Amino acid sequence: MYKIDLNCDLGESFGAYKIGLDDKILPFISSANVACGFHASDPLVMSETVKNAAKSGAAVGAHPGFPDLMGFGRRNMNVSAAEAKAYISYQIGALDAFCRANGVKLRHIKPHGALYNMAAKERSLADAICEAVYEYDNSLILLGLSGSMLLEAAKAKGLPYASEVFADRAYEEDGSLVARTKEGAVIKDEDEAVNRVIRMVTQGTVEAITGKVVPIKADSVCVHGDNEKALAFVMKIRASLESSGVKISALER
Amino acid sequence: MYKIDLNCDLGESFGAYKIGLDDKILPFISSANVACGFHASDPLVMSETVKNAAKSGAAVGAHPGFPDLMGFGRRNMNVSAAEAKAYISYQIGALDAFCRANGVKLRHIKPHGALYNMAAKERSLADAICEAVYEYDNSLILLGLSGSMLLEAAKAKGLPYASEVFADRAYEEDGSLVARTKEGAVIKDEDEAVNRVIRMVTQGTVEAITGKVVPIKADSVCVHGDNEKALAFVMKIRASLESSGVKISALER
Amino acid sequence: MYKIDLNCDLGESFGAYKIGLDDKILPFISSANVACGFHASDPLVMSETVKNAAKSGAAVGAHPGFPDLMGFGRRNMNVSAAEAKAYISYQIGALDAFCRANGVKLRHIKPHGALYNMAAKERSLADAICEAVYEYDNSLILLGLSGSMLLEAAKAKGLPYASEVFADRAYEEDGSLVARTKEGAVIKDEDEAVNRVIRMVTQGTVEAITGKVVPIKADSVCVHGDNEKALAFVMKIRASLESSGVKISALER
Amino acid sequence: MYKIDLNCDLGESFGAYKIGLDDKILPFISSANVACGFHASDPLVMSETVKNAAKSGAAVGAHPGFPDLMGFGRRNMNVSAAEAKAYISYQIGALDAFCRANGVKLRHIKPHGALYNMAAKERSLADAICEAVYEYDNSLILLGLSGSMLLEAAKAKGLPYASEVFADRAYEEDGSLVARTKEGAVIKDEDEAVNRVIRMVTQGTVEAITGKVVPIKADSVCVHGDNEKALAFVMKIRASLESSGVKISALER
Repeated sequence: MYKIDLNCDLGESFGAYKIGLDDKILPFISSANVACGFHASDPLVMSETVKNAAKSGAAVGAHPGFPDLMGFGRRNMNVSAAEAKAYISYQIGALDAFCRANGVKLRHIKPHGALYNMAAKERSLADAICEAVYEYDNSLILLGLSGSMLLEAAKAKGLPYASEVFADRAYEEDGSLVARTKEGAVIKDEDEAVNRVIRMVTQGTVEAITGKVVPIKADSVCVHGDNEKALAFVMKIRASLESSGVKISALER
Repeated sequence: MYKIDLNCDLGESFGAYKIGLDDKILPFISSANVACGFHASDPLVMSETVKNAAKSGAAVGAHPGFPDLMGFGRRNMNVSAAEAKAYISYQIGALDAFCRANGVKLRHIKPHGALYNMAAKERSLADAICEAVYEYDNSLILLGLSGSMLLEAAKAKGLPYASEVFADRAYEEDGSLVARTKEGAVIKDEDEAVNRVIRMVTQGTVEAITGKVVPIKADSVCVHGDNEKALAFVMKIRASLESSGVKISALER
Repeated sequence: MYKIDLNCDLGESFGAYKIGLDDKILPFISSANVACGFHASDPLVMSETVKNAAKSGAAVGAHPGFPDLMGFGRRNMNVSAAEAKAYISYQIGALDAFCRANGVKLRHIKPHGALYNMAAKERSLADAICEAVYEYDNSLILLGLSGSMLLEAAKAKGLPYASEVFADRAYEEDGSLVARTKEGAVIKDEDEAVNRVIRMVTQGTVEAITGKVVPIKADSVCVHGDNEKALAFVMKIRASLESSGVKISALER
Repeated sequence: MYKIDLNCDLGESFGAYKIGLDDKILPFISSANVACGFHASDPLVMSETVKNAAKSGAAVGAHPGFPDLMGFGRRNMNVSAAEAKAYISYQIGALDAFCRANGVKLRHIKPHGALYNMAAKERSLADAICEAVYEYDNSLILLGLSGSMLLEAAKAKGLPYASEVFADRAYEEDGSLVARTKEGAVIKDEDEAVNRVIRMVTQGTVEAITGKVVPIKADSVCVHGDNEKALAFVMKIRASLESSGVKISALER
């Protein structure tokens, strides 16, 4: 039987600022990537988010980012490998405190935004992240872009890892994401997006933007809970996967 | 045989900003209270500080504070109990990540600055701190002002706790510190300060500012490593304690 | 002819975080209090907000707060008078840069949240704020709680000032706001709230919570643009004031 | 008669953190670049720094940087042109508030660290900076790396600008700085450094690392006040310049 994880970034609110329909999307996902206070979230939000994720049965992962709240962690920052490693350690530990308080076992780590993108391409940054995770708990699963340098680094380090795919993004023949600046980079048709995911999961392939069918590893699909439309799409993709015989379940080592 | 802990706030540097002669004072103290990134420190500093404390053999404790880097955590902030609890959880977890990476067991928690002072008097804040510590690891020792509400809260919660005294501060008859605004609040004579500590440790008493001798519990003496003068005083008090038959050793449950 | 100012806190978004229906409420208010990056807002948001306020014709004021983004400036902070003064200077200058770039003359200053409340009662804090404003531009109008210490300080300093009233809050006989913890502190009936404002403006009186009619000075009414309900109330109060012969216009020296 | 400006970054302390021998170096420089609270400094430090600069007679300039206190503004950040422009406006305005309070006319703007380096090469960033400065006050002098894109942008915008040179850095034949990673990038001999500056000022040339003598524009020399050694060098270079008939004076339009 096929299975796939549905992961979503959660706990991105900060103080008086609210982002995301966390409560509404939790029942439909299997993994929650919880922001850790650098690019988003604060301790109170983290506490609530972990508590709610635990109640819903979603696996809890850390979602560390750059120390750039004003930019929501979406801006490349030229941090050193040592800084990156320390930032990851700090954020994992901070989130894990709320897991411990709620009797939850931290399951995975997924870097956020610019850190995710940079680590997909820069080996030294990827290594720094993997070292921090490994030193904290070498049973934590590193969730990263399918086919990326980050997953190669995890493999080299001996960390369990999982490949993330995107329902609404086009792929190049080499398995990388088509740059957003390129036409056709985003799949706008919801049914097409759903069918692409089912194919990735059940056949291990994706039709690249060139038309050529290429192999792709899909352990987890990234979904969003920012608004009602995103929420509706998650329900749709979940139902479609299940009716195609694909079980939704959290990542496992 | 008498024994006492010498504790010092460490790891208070931040980015390009350096505070404290951490390397120089580490050999002379038994406990390091490491700042956790809210009122001082950053992940890289925390990583280095825990590593160096581990090398020196000092016990490592978390030194959480208010989220007020600009005020160094010294300004009272009217946070709710829920906020305080979450801030403590977050900071303990963040620091513990570096302990885990360095194979160090986190030993104690000492709130910093305004948080320390407020929690000495406000039971709801003291309870919030103790709950966070207890939920994280109920074997952690809470280090607080001797005779304070914070230690009462720890006792009520079932947390191990330790009583901190100050060599250079005068005490009221009820065992509280004489307010800094009052004349005679600070003991300026070094020999007198040393003798007062020896008396607290070996006899369990202190001469209050009124002249009356009152009981005081002393498990740990707070020392400083900010400058050469402070450093010299630590060496002096350590030597005096040892020659008076008092052993310097970290807190134990 | 009677006239009154309708002021609203604007520009409270921060990075990816959105708060307030700024564009929708701008046409209905005469004064915009723009957050300055300490408790809310960021430079890009400030730039946009000033631009939009200028287009709509609303007067632009600075809305400085405590350096506490996580608490949205709503938590009392024990800052010194010198710190408070410097924080005010900094924030006024920062906002004024966007006024200059948009050809707008900064009109008023209204402290935010905990700073507003504390300055209403503590004369040294009130003086610090007024000194900062006076040194920056002694033609700026200080907008504060009607009958508060802050306005007394402004008067003493020789600053123009204006008295703010609240449509939805009950008043004590001495003209102070009934504490939110007390029953009846908030006026929930919209029509009653509107009528109270009209009375304040046209008769200079308010019925205190005790039933006694007391004098009150009303130069400006605080309204909100957080949600559709708040927006509807602003339109209602504006229409009611205008049909009662009260002109809505910005503060003037 | 030849003349040159000696500029130094000042006011980089933050809260309890002290950096720089500001008081000691002020008498020897003609221009103070004052940090504005993003990469360093806080409102109280800015207030003190402007006051002290005014007393000493040094011209006051704004020294804006990236919003990265943890990295001291030394890490490249991928901010948009609109963000950069707003960050510059905000910081100039904030600093100018302290100039107004002290009766000082803000004279120049020098971007800090990574922002300085990136703006020397990226025209869109350079343009964004110049637009912010121009819209604030088109008589402000933009101080940037001699021969850089930033100065070209200033020229194109119609802003007054000034060329900064470094005493202790080697130059390529095209007038750019030799990368720090290259051998010989830093001039370690103090006398050589001093003589190079005198040549730049009096002859308008510098011997490039290749040995070839190339033209260079030198309006201002960057000096440092971080420590006693740096301070001694400033006194030396000042004395040498004066004895070579070069007058030390602040930038003028």
